[in-house]
Order: sequence, then structure tokens, then C-alpha cells
Amino acid sequence: MDAHGGDVYSRPVRWDFSANVNPLGTPEGVKEAVRRSAEWCFRYPDSRCLRLREALEAFHQVPREQILCGNGAADLLFQLVLAARPENALLLAPTFSEYGKALAAAGCRSELFFLDRKAGFQPEIKALKAKICAMEEAGRKPDLLFFCNPNNPTGRAVLRKDMEELAEFSEERGICLVLDECFVDFLDEPDAYSLLGQTERFPHMVIFKAFTKLYGMAGLRLGYCLTKNTGLLEQMEEVRQPWSVSGPAQEAGLAALKEEDYRQKTRAVIARGRRQVSQGLTSLGFQVTAPMANYVFFRDQRPDAEEGELYEECLKRGLLIRSCANYPGLDGRDYRVCVKGEEENQRLLAILWECLDASGV
Amino acid sequence: MDAHGGDVYSRPVRWDFSANVNPLGTPEGVKEAVRRSAEWCFRYPDSRCLRLREALEAFHQVPREQILCGNGAADLLFQLVLAARPENALLLAPTFSEYGKALAAAGCRSELFFLDRKAGFQPEIKALKAKICAMEEAGRKPDLLFFCNPNNPTGRAVLRKDMEELAEFSEERGICLVLDECFVDFLDEPDAYSLLGQTERFPHMVIFKAFTKLYGMAGLRLGYCLTKNTGLLEQMEEVRQPWSVSGPAQEAGLAALKEEDYRQKTRAVIARGRRQVSQGLTSLGFQVTAPMANYVFFRDQRPDAEEGELYEECLKRGLLIRSCANYPGLDGRDYRVCVKGEEENQRLLAILWECLDASGV
Repeated sequence: MDAHGGDVYSRPVRWDFSANVNPLGTPEGVKEAVRRSAEWCFRYPDSRCLRLREALEAFHQVPREQILCGNGAADLLFQLVLAARPENALLLAPTFSEYGKALAAAGCRSELFFLDRKAGFQPEIKALKAKICAMEEAGRKPDLLFFCNPNNPTGRAVLRKDMEELAEFSEERGICLVLDECFVDFLDEPDAYSLLGQTERFPHMVIFKAFTKLYGMAGLRLGYCLTKNTGLLEQMEEVRQPWSVSGPAQEAGLAALKEEDYRQKTRAVIARGRRQVSQGLTSLGFQVTAPMANYVFFRDQRPDAEEGELYEECLKRGLLIRSCANYPGLDGRDYRVCVKGEEENQRLLAILWECLDASGV
Repeated sequence: MDAHGGDVYSRPVRWDFSANVNPLGTPEGVKEAVRRSAEWCFRYPDSRCLRLREALEAFHQVPREQILCGNGAADLLFQLVLAARPENALLLAPTFSEYGKALAAAGCRSELFFLDRKAGFQPEIKALKAKICAMEEAGRKPDLLFFCNPNNPTGRAVLRKDMEELAEFSEERGICLVLDECFVDFLDEPDAYSLLGQTERFPHMVIFKAFTKLYGMAGLRLGYCLTKNTGLLEQMEEVRQPWSVSGPAQEAGLAALKEEDYRQKTRAVIARGRRQVSQGLTSLGFQVTAPMANYVFFRDQRPDAEEGELYEECLKRGLLIRSCANYPGLDGRDYRVCVKGEEENQRLLAILWECLDASGV
């Protein structure tokens, strides 16, 4: 079992449902940009990503000075933590594991805010605020709070008004709120959840976005962050090489922003696929956490099922799913699958059925 | 003026002589690999770079466990320093500026070993050893020593037997010798200078290599390091994201290693070009440091020339050269140009002649 999804290199995999990448595949315009970029790869890439940041400024209506691009959003996480040098940080649990890894690399103390399984892992902002107050009283006020919305791997999103409450609370206390919105575009109504338009209002907030998932560009590595705190972005540039973002990634990013039809189509495919996979998994007897993004979190609650058993059974049949055994608060009976097109989802459900049937539990 | 060469994005540049990239351009096989990779960029890249490390094992005869790939050699520098967490480090001056930047990012104290202009910036191993002993006696023994061979920007290389002396000396004292051999393949006889075959003998040594320069792949970002100290490589993976190396870069690297003819041809072109540029610059009255790699370091010694004047005059004519004003020990009358093919070198020299003529100094 791996620390992350998407490892189709170590073993034979026919169907990869472990990585949350857009099932429509890379848009043709992006592929064409990569092919064209081959002619220019003798050049160092633009260390400032000027054209791409200009395009992002126009796309998000956020000034380019407030945008920093990186070699995938995960790359920027490490730079943020190294630049901010927090003493104490607070994370959801479970959540994307690279936050904790980056904090450990910078020697930062992390505390976990456990999401409640009984409440369907829905983050409760009131309780989170109480946790922060408790830390504060104990002399361990977090300098940094990582919040993934919608959360990965559980797939639950928090409404914008509640996020505003959290951002305001963080702002008052000078806590840097790192808001990872890498999956927000897969929600049915991104605007009802995103704080992207509010960087001016919350200068302590840093928003992370990725091209990786939405545009099927995981192999190219391209992410960015946005914040009013331009001093922090400058510090982040001091703890990394100048040429983080490759030429092909910059060209691909420029092409991706033009793909309006693709974005519309994605939302429709994901909405249908989410229902299909969620209902299918429920029918098979799994305990499904109501999904909101492009992946579905579920639990193998068969009384005699062993930890990791379903993962291994799937792999025998060429299907890779994400075991969530390595997340704090979860165990080897928790899994995540991504949502794809109708036929592929059908294949996923058919193989899972086979696994249950074979085990005879 | 910029902190690095190769910035052709901020101003109009017709001829870029500021970046030390192979003048033959990217090999067709590498470009083709990039174009092919466009089909697969929806996949996360292999976080372990297995196929590429297998190919490097065969190419260098160094076990794959001793090899770590990164998003350019510069990326690995930061990871090395973050993982090794040295207290004191020693650097040549002048040398590649990212070493110092990485050390500063990790909060490490750096000391400089100044190369002697009168001795043509040739690194003197005896004197370097004496410096280390002096630091040791003063209670500031370096934990880490950066050594760039051939050195950048001065272009002087140290023979293998002298490097062995330094490596042995470092080994005895438990000093991590970071030996940057990114330009070694541009020397006339790389084997007479490289310690690449001796990782087993010097477990405290880490060698850096890049695809960037040799294969005209600067835009793709691909470098690697080799060391017997596999524990250090594991620590380096702990301070970075898992997907540092993009899919196109991995595919390009695999293709590049097959380019034996290209490597042969490169050496011949560089040897000829180096003579041509060096003699031309000397004829124009510049003070040239005898070059050994694919770039030439020179000084504008006209009595009335101002700092940075030549750089600006060149830029007016569409020619970008590297001002070395930002290196410790150098100033705005020191420059570096790369070596290209015969016609381009001729163009470089003609424009420089024009600049001298126009200034009338």
C-alpha cells in the first residue's frame, strides 16, 4: 500500500481509481501546448511565470503580485511552511498527508482536529474554533491552520459563509489560514464554497489551487497560491530554486485556462458519476460518506473483512483503489475511489462486486 | 541585471549568451519523447523515477539506490541542505549562487573561500584544506562543503587526483562534500576530472549532475544526485513533495541517455567554440580566464569602462550576456558568455566589437 494514490508504476494496474484526476483526460489544447513546448525546452523557463500569472490575474480577477506558481500545489506547500516557519500548526484529521509532512520537515509542532465519523466527517467550524481557543489558552496558539475544502479524502465541503467565519476568526488572531481549494471546481456550485474572491478581505489567508486535477495535468506539475500577503510569497521564493515551474507546464497552464467548455463538461460528468458511484457502493453494502467532489470515501463494514483485504482483492483484478490506512483517524477498512465516466464507473462497481463475491464474507 | 542567466522573458533578446546550455539544441529524440509524453500527462508521474534510475544505474554503473532525481539539480540543492541541516558550510567565491541561497534558507552559516583573481581563479586544494583546518581550530568546522567542478562562472576545473585529495580529506573529517559536476561533460576529458565512479570510496560525498545543460533540457527541469549515503537521500525525500519530477522530464531523461552521438558531437563543438570565443575576446582586449567548460569568463578592463556598461550596450543590440556583478568577489566589469556554434560565436564577437567601438573608450 502506498502513501498516495496514482502509483501505477510499481504493479500492473488496468484501472486506476486511486488518483482524483479529471476523467475527461487532458484537454486536446493542453496536449498540443505540451507538444509545441518541445521546441523550446533548451531554454530556461521563465522564473517569474509572467505570462501565466497575467492569465491567472485575468481569470481570477486577482492581481498578479498576489499569485505564485509552483511545481504542483504540493511543491508550494513545502515552500509555504519553510517560509512561514510556524511553531504550532493545526490540521484536520484525516486530510491530505503532505501538510503534515511539510510541517515535520520544517520542525513544526502539529496538532490534529479530528473529524467525526458519526457526523459523516463534516468539518464543524464552531468546534474547530473552540479547538483553536483551547490551544491558545494552553499557550500553543497555532500560527498556521491547514484547511482543505472540500476535504481530501473524505470529500465533504464547507459552505462559504462558514468559511468566512473561520477566515475572520483566523484574521483576528493573526493565524495564517492555508485554504486548499484544489478540488473546489469539482463541486456542483464552486462559488457557494470558495473564498477565492476574498484575498483582499483576509490578508492572512493563502489559497492553494492546482491545474493537476481539474485539467488532467498531474504529470506536468502545476499549481499556484494566491494571497494578499505578498511578503510571504517573496519569502517562499527565497527558499526554492528560481526555475520551479517547467516550460511545458507554463505553456500547458496558459492553454488550460482557455478550456471553458471542458470545465462545464467536467462538472456535468462528475455530478452524474458521483451519484452513480455513491449509489453503487451503497448497494454493495459499503458505508459511503456523502460525496461532494470528484471522489468517494467509503468503508468496508463487513464484520469479517480484514484491513486492506479489499485493496488487495481489487489489485489482483487490475483495479487500483486508494487505501486510507495511513491517515490518522482512519484504518485499513477505509477507502477512496475517484469518479470517472459511466462505463468506467460501472467497471469499478463490477470488480468491487466480484471482490465481495469471491471473499464470500 | 538578473541574479541568473537565461532570462529572455523580461526584455527583447535576439541572442542569448547568458545561459550555459548546449548550443546543439535539444536532441530530436528528447523532443520526440516530450511530444509523446503529452498523451500521458493526466497521470501522476512516478514518484520514485524507477525507469529513469534504472537507466542511470546502467549508464553510470552506480546502484539505483544511490541515485535521487529532482526537478533540476538546483531543486535537489535545497533538499540536500534542508535534509543535512548543516551548522557551518564552506563555499568557493565566486561560485553558483544557489548554494548560498539554499544555505541561507536553512539558516546555515556560510563561509567563503575566495578564489584568487591573480591565479586565474584556479581553485587551490592545499589552500582550501588549510582554510578548513583554520575553521576547525576556530570551532567552526564546516559540516558541508560545496565544490563546483568545473566552477561556475569562472570555468576552471580541478584534476581528479586533486579532487581525490579533497574528498579523502573531507571523508576523514566527516565533512559532506557536495561536488557539483553539472558542467563536467563539457570538459575535453571529463574522466580526468570527475569523481563520479568513486561514490563507494567516499561515502560522505554527494555528486550533482544535470540533464539541463548537456542535453539542452533547461526548460524541462531534470537533475540528479549520487551518493553512497542512501540515508541522506531518504531524508531528502522527506523534505519534498513525492512528485518532484514531471512525466515529460522523466521521459526526456530516458531518451537523452541514448544520445551517444550527440554527446560526442557536443564535445567537439564546444572545444572549437571555446578556442574561438576565448581568442576573440582576448583580441578585443578583454581579460579572459582560460576557459575549460562551455562558457568563458572575462573582464572588461578598459580603464574608463563603467560597471555594467558592456551588459547594457549588448542588450541594446539584442545580445544578452551574463553580468557577474552579483557574485561575491566579482564586480560589474566581470562577465560570462556561453560558447555556441561558429557563426553564433562570430555574431557575439561582432556585437562586442560594436559595443567597444560605440563607447569609444
